[in-house]
Amino acid sequence: MKSIPLILMGCGGVGRQLLQHIVSCRDIHALNYGVRLRVVGVADSKSLLSVPDIFTTELDDHSVDEICRLKSNGSSLSSLTSYGDYQVFSNSETITNITEVASHLVRSTGLAVVDCSASSDTIGILQKVAEMNGCIVLANKKPLTSSMEDYDKLVLHPRRLRHESTVGAGLPVIMSINRLLSSGDTIHRIVGSLSDPRDDLGGMDVARKALIVARLLGQRLELDSIKVESLYPAEMGPNAMSVEDFLANGVSQLDNSLADRVEKAASNGNVLRYVCVIEGSRCEVGIQELPKNSALGRLRGSDNVLEVYSRCYSEQPLIIQGAGAGNDTTAAGVLADILDLQDLFT
Amino acid sequence: MKSIPLILMGCGGVGRQLLQHIVSCRDIHALNYGVRLRVVGVADSKSLLSVPDIFTTELDDHSVDEICRLKSNGSSLSSLTSYGDYQVFSNSETITNITEVASHLVRSTGLAVVDCSASSDTIGILQKVAEMNGCIVLANKKPLTSSMEDYDKLVLHPRRLRHESTVGAGLPVIMSINRLLSSGDTIHRIVGSLSDPRDDLGGMDVARKALIVARLLGQRLELDSIKVESLYPAEMGPNAMSVEDFLANGVSQLDNSLADRVEKAASNGNVLRYVCVIEGSRCEVGIQELPKNSALGRLRGSDNVLEVYSRCYSEQPLIIQGAGAGNDTTAAGVLADILDLQDLFT
Repeated sequence: MKSIPLILMGCGGVGRQLLQHIVSCRDIHALNYGVRLRVVGVADSKSLLSVPDIFTTELDDHSVDEICRLKSNGSSLSSLTSYGDYQVFSNSETITNITEVASHLVRSTGLAVVDCSASSDTIGILQKVAEMNGCIVLANKKPLTSSMEDYDKLVLHPRRLRHESTVGAGLPVIMSINRLLSSGDTIHRIVGSLSDPRDDLGGMDVARKALIVARLLGQRLELDSIKVESLYPAEMGPNAMSVEDFLANGVSQLDNSLADRVEKAASNGNVLRYVCVIEGSRCEVGIQELPKNSALGRLRGSDNVLEVYSRCYSEQPLIIQGAGAGNDTTAAGVLADILDLQDLFT
Repeated sequence: MKSIPLILMGCGGVGRQLLQHIVSCRDIHALNYGVRLRVVGVADSKSLLSVPDIFTTELDDHSVDEICRLKSNGSSLSSLTSYGDYQVFSNSETITNITEVASHLVRSTGLAVVDCSASSDTIGILQKVAEMNGCIVLANKKPLTSSMEDYDKLVLHPRRLRHESTVGAGLPVIMSINRLLSSGDTIHRIVGSLSDPRDDLGGMDVARKALIVARLLGQRLELDSIKVESLYPAEMGPNAMSVEDFLANGVSQLDNSLADRVEKAASNGNVLRYVCVIEGSRCEVGIQELPKNSALGRLRGSDNVLEVYSRCYSEQPLIIQGAGAGNDTTAAGVLADILDLQDLFT
């Protein structure tokens, strides 16, 4: 049986779901791949809980349940000053110990460090892991949308980095783009509806996703250079208008100003969609007029859609569509990424 | 630089396009992955052309052009009784020599055997390669749609077998299904429009694709047990009606009989589509009534569409759509598969 040691950073909804998926998939992974995922450490923003012997032991299924219960109640791992045979490190010790555990494991058995947090604080650890030639799996968008300097350090060994769940949750977006690139296809244009605007009226979440895709295509861009059209004007922003005022008066003003644009688009046979467009050196997020009859134009509800135009998909785009959010789907994408790294472990 | 030795079987449109893609992607592969694909042998149905030293030499770019020209003129490799430093083996020698070359390379550097033929004759060689722990990449559907006994021998080492281009050409169908399976998602139902009915009125091509997907999901089925609804009745088959008669009289009769079904579907708000359905232990190919408003219902032109319903994609399916045929796209899918095996080479 091939053993893949894992350190998980981030015990929010996605991280906890991942731990539960790992436990429930043990039989499938053993039977289909001869692989066992061995969780050797779990960290939240303050603390690291690690197994007594990182080379032979693992977080048992009962402890996984306990940790998930603790975290879903809003407690910190640091509330466990001790827990069974496990070691608990807090505050400044946390980063030192993750790096130390990683260094030992990368040199011996190999290691995957999985980042399901939503924090920028993990970037330093991840860069060290990349430098050591360890594997990295991200659901966290922040490390990939920091400066180009940080980005370059992270993608040092591209085959050891997976991040499907940073764009469109478990949808096979990153992997499909990577396949087109490795087959020498030329990607002309990507248009995507990659977030639910109800959660992201300011557009920053979709801007991060757009940046991740643009950098994958070779654009050397910084986040603040992406043109983002917010769905609300500055005078309705969180610093200028209260939530109550925004809901009572702001939203109806937005509806009025958009109604004109909707009508104008309709007169061209088009509809408005809030999308990212990546084309040549262009990377933008905003409202676009799109053909009513395209996959994006027909989009209803909360699905994500990506249209890729390339040499191979020139007349009609390659379309990937489906649920692009949710802890279950996001964690499933992370787990598929981990399994896809199995050939790098012995 | 990591070198991946390849033997290509099949020099039809897809095989020749693959050789040309390999040449034109050399820089991308070197730069992005540090990988060089080294073609050590090319075989058609009668002959094998192999390089003088399989451990160090490769088919040079000029020879690739020459071979492609020869094959696109309809000649056989056997017309090359000798060609530069290359060795040419014909007829019964061919299989013996492919097996011998494969055996040497698998034991030393590793090897990928790529089958772009449309023949059942490659099954024996492929099984030997699988048994030796070599890598296999298929665009050829026949080896995966032979008996379950043959299938089991071929999928002996699932991570060393890739076959994206057997279903939907380069569309990321197989890989997306494999990711769902490795993440422990439960697939309830797959519905796909996977061929252009103008090329496949009898439905056997799409039946093979359906079988490949069904076996991937764990169904242990034989090709002849798949219920295939032909678009023409037996009395219009190739043995019962001439092509002239079929075109002059047969087609209009088909149109009439389908018109009733189209009308009945429309009265239910549905449309007719020629699809495969894989669900539980069911695997069928035929005309189905589907919602006008689904991805399959909206389908126009020659795109392929796959809808996957699973635990993660339950309300709305995961949809993959795009061009599902063509030598360029098919060969690109094969090339992406080869690159995806790179971690198995040292």
